[in-house]
Amino acid sequence: MQHSSSCDSKNRNVKITIKYDGSNYHGWQVQKNAVSVQETFQNALAKIIGDDIDVKGCSRTDTGVHANMYCIGLKTDHPIPCARLKAALNNHLPLDMAVLDCEDMPLEFHPRYDCKRKQYIYKIWNNEVRDPFMNGYALHYRYRDMDEELLNKAAAHYLGTHDFTSFCTLDNRRIGDMRRTVYLSKVERSGDIVTFTVEADGFLYNMVRIMTGTLLRVAQRKIMPDDIPSIIEKKDRSFAGPTAPACGLYLNKVIY
Amino acid sequence: MQHSSSCDSKNRNVKITIKYDGSNYHGWQVQKNAVSVQETFQNALAKIIGDDIDVKGCSRTDTGVHANMYCIGLKTDHPIPCARLKAALNNHLPLDMAVLDCEDMPLEFHPRYDCKRKQYIYKIWNNEVRDPFMNGYALHYRYRDMDEELLNKAAAHYLGTHDFTSFCTLDNRRIGDMRRTVYLSKVERSGDIVTFTVEADGFLYNMVRIMTGTLLRVAQRKIMPDDIPSIIEKKDRSFAGPTAPACGLYLNKVIY
Repeated sequence: MQHSSSCDSKNRNVKITIKYDGSNYHGWQVQKNAVSVQETFQNALAKIIGDDIDVKGCSRTDTGVHANMYCIGLKTDHPIPCARLKAALNNHLPLDMAVLDCEDMPLEFHPRYDCKRKQYIYKIWNNEVRDPFMNGYALHYRYRDMDEELLNKAAAHYLGTHDFTSFCTLDNRRIGDMRRTVYLSKVERSGDIVTFTVEADGFLYNMVRIMTGTLLRVAQRKIMPDDIPSIIEKKDRSFAGPTAPACGLYLNKVIY
Repeated sequence: MQHSSSCDSKNRNVKITIKYDGSNYHGWQVQKNAVSVQETFQNALAKIIGDDIDVKGCSRTDTGVHANMYCIGLKTDHPIPCARLKAALNNHLPLDMAVLDCEDMPLEFHPRYDCKRKQYIYKIWNNEVRDPFMNGYALHYRYRDMDEELLNKAAAHYLGTHDFTSFCTLDNRRIGDMRRTVYLSKVERSGDIVTFTVEADGFLYNMVRIMTGTLLRVAQRKIMPDDIPSIIEKKDRSFAGPTAPACGLYLNKVIY
């Protein structure tokens, strides 16, 4: 669990923006018997400002998921200037993690609750032969049936406000409003890399990975783009495609 | 050493083009107590056509050096068609290695001696903060003094036929003609990635890494672009810049 027992009496609230290769981590959250991003980050932080730290992340992430941008809220009484904290953290963090920015925020800032939108990307390596440099960084999809136009027709159906129950792994953690508003949903090809970009006011558990798995079913012509609205309507996970593996998924932007 | 004891009585000569992430390998050549690309490749090959194999590489490469394209010559009597050999190798090789192409060649073809030109690239991540995804795939150079125009002026001096003794680590293996002809030598920036591309009829030991280290000295204004001709003239390793680390180096093309 997080070091979150503090009574919020700290006099500083620092937003720390990091980037990390998630290959070696079991997601963000501290857990027993597995190395997490949070634990690794807190260990580096403790070397700089001691271990009286209260750290909160902007989002849970699964094992193997990457982040081009991830925001952390740190409450502390330590007076270290932001520029020095950034440099010191980059000295103490492992090479698969980096601090991009540190910024003092109002005390009431919360990295998760104050987040207005998040953007994820999902990368697919679309070539008969795998790319050794994409191993763990993109899903390898070997078939030449990925029609960009068709996939974009499907992706466009994700736009707007919907109950995304069909695109959520039910895990007992999530109860309540399953509606989310999707602002951006598109597929782009650059050479053999196909990228699905989706931005929303929030995401249900596994939502991007199930959206991606459904797009792969569209590539295979097992689901037609115009089937997507009725899959959403059904509010039943079994109608959507499979959950795509974690390795292709990147938290790309966090917008406050 | 290579399985090269054959008396060249095999009836097939197959050119196998691979791509590999060199992070986990101690270069191409089989050696004791260290995993090499050649050994890994031969192990996969043995599962398909047995171990009566004669494999030759197009080049030695150092530990941690990557290859976007590397050519192997395989002499064998096995009748497996090239398309099946490619698919079978991709099934048996680890995920950080891939076969791009297999092609039957005349019996006299040799992947090293018949190579007309090779092209290397050296990647530099030029940002104050490291990129977690470039760890092991580019040199991290944090200073903002990399002036593309200046570097290109320096790189242009590598063009042409020169004795490159100043750009060679002497290792007792190399005696003889130290002249090489450089056909392409340029520096390009794409965002924070600076790439040095160099193509020649052959390369001395560590030549690209020393050329890169010398360009970094130019970035730091410790060497001026117009100093390069006299560094070449000197035929003395101590006048060139340091040997840049292996991680940023990729064998990019092999031209027959």
